[in-house]
Amino acid sequence: MFELLPDERLDYLLGQEGKIIQSPSVFSYSLDAALLARFAWVPIQQGRIADLCSGNGAIPLFLSYRTKGQITGLEIQPRLAEMARRSVTLNELNDRIEMIEGDVKEAGTRLGYGIYDAVTCNPPYFLANETSNQNQSEHYTIARHEVLCTLEDCIRGASDLLKQGGKAAFVHRPERLLDIVTLMRTYRLEPKRMQLIYPKAGKEANMLLIEGIKDAKPGLKVLPPFIVYEADNSYAAQMKELFDV
Amino acid sequence: MFELLPDERLDYLLGQEGKIIQSPSVFSYSLDAALLARFAWVPIQQGRIADLCSGNGAIPLFLSYRTKGQITGLEIQPRLAEMARRSVTLNELNDRIEMIEGDVKEAGTRLGYGIYDAVTCNPPYFLANETSNQNQSEHYTIARHEVLCTLEDCIRGASDLLKQGGKAAFVHRPERLLDIVTLMRTYRLEPKRMQLIYPKAGKEANMLLIEGIKDAKPGLKVLPPFIVYEADNSYAAQMKELFDV
Repeated sequence: MFELLPDERLDYLLGQEGKIIQSPSVFSYSLDAALLARFAWVPIQQGRIADLCSGNGAIPLFLSYRTKGQITGLEIQPRLAEMARRSVTLNELNDRIEMIEGDVKEAGTRLGYGIYDAVTCNPPYFLANETSNQNQSEHYTIARHEVLCTLEDCIRGASDLLKQGGKAAFVHRPERLLDIVTLMRTYRLEPKRMQLIYPKAGKEANMLLIEGIKDAKPGLKVLPPFIVYEADNSYAAQMKELFDV
Repeated sequence: MFELLPDERLDYLLGQEGKIIQSPSVFSYSLDAALLARFAWVPIQQGRIADLCSGNGAIPLFLSYRTKGQITGLEIQPRLAEMARRSVTLNELNDRIEMIEGDVKEAGTRLGYGIYDAVTCNPPYFLANETSNQNQSEHYTIARHEVLCTLEDCIRGASDLLKQGGKAAFVHRPERLLDIVTLMRTYRLEPKRMQLIYPKAGKEANMLLIEGIKDAKPGLKVLPPFIVYEADNSYAAQMKELFDV
């Protein structure tokens, strides 16, 4: 009940039994998505969860191992949304994951205002005019650069979807911390939990996980540092523990 | 050329030859001050450095090992400023460290607007009405609670003193990160370097070091995590390296 296009391949979801359709020339999920899907709070037994900028659906697929709730992914690129849908079918998750093709700027209108318990979002990291070590395919450019949506669009979209007390979790570059927390406060998502990801113990952080609660009181907790690799480039203990790799 | 009052004792400056006059009932410096004095940028050969909320002068004393510049401490409590002056004399640093008794809200007027290369500040951590595991002496209360000055007073004071391009470094609780970065931007101190201090590898951060540059462009770096203790409560490798303990 699924087929792979010529440029596609079937990859494992890191640390899980499930698989995901990817394409080196279109889109492949990164560790960022896997870590966000572990970091984010989700309701366990029931509830509504949305994933914005959902790409090929990696975060909804990862989240399906942590919740029995309904997960809705929103992705603007038709090719990626379609890949995600085939992965959902492949993992027999059609009753729990829905992929919607659409713009995060219309998240509330498309998915519903104020009815979600949790939202995740792995937004484009780079400014529209910023250079990155980017793969030049248009698919990657849209996924990695703020071409079709800005960080503000993502944070406003998340806030629109959430109930009061609902939780929104984002992953981004530490360089943008100031923008993220400022925008989160602007859109009533008070930052409550943050974790910094360091590639190695003595290196600067290269990833930031942050979760806000809609209309919560101020007070941020900074979780223990998360180290990805040992000095010899093998996975560090925390990676092994989290993903059984 | 110095004397100890009955409740005072002479302590080592962590990792240095120098000594500092302290008093369990009045004020003793904490690891926070020692770490801030290592984290902060200072001009090496010459320049002006100010330390706000200087207490018994621990940060100026620590900084004297890293700079030949002129260091001015500002402390509102007469007893603490006086203790600091005796420590400066004891360490034969009167030609390089000056302790001024005064209010951080008048920092610019007292020390001079826009003439400093670097400012450090270990402000009171707790809100005026907040409970802490506090020693009840009035000296400690003033040093630890925002009774006589707020975080905003400290950040505005630091900004007032700094030249364009000058650097201000603060230490605080991670819970206040949002307030700190918001106020820093308000007073033109763009956050550029941040380091989180974790008591142990698997614990939440309990201290935040952050440095801003006056009128700089946005872009924050998050330095490697700093771990204080091993699981067995001995000093961790980074503490040993930094302070030779």
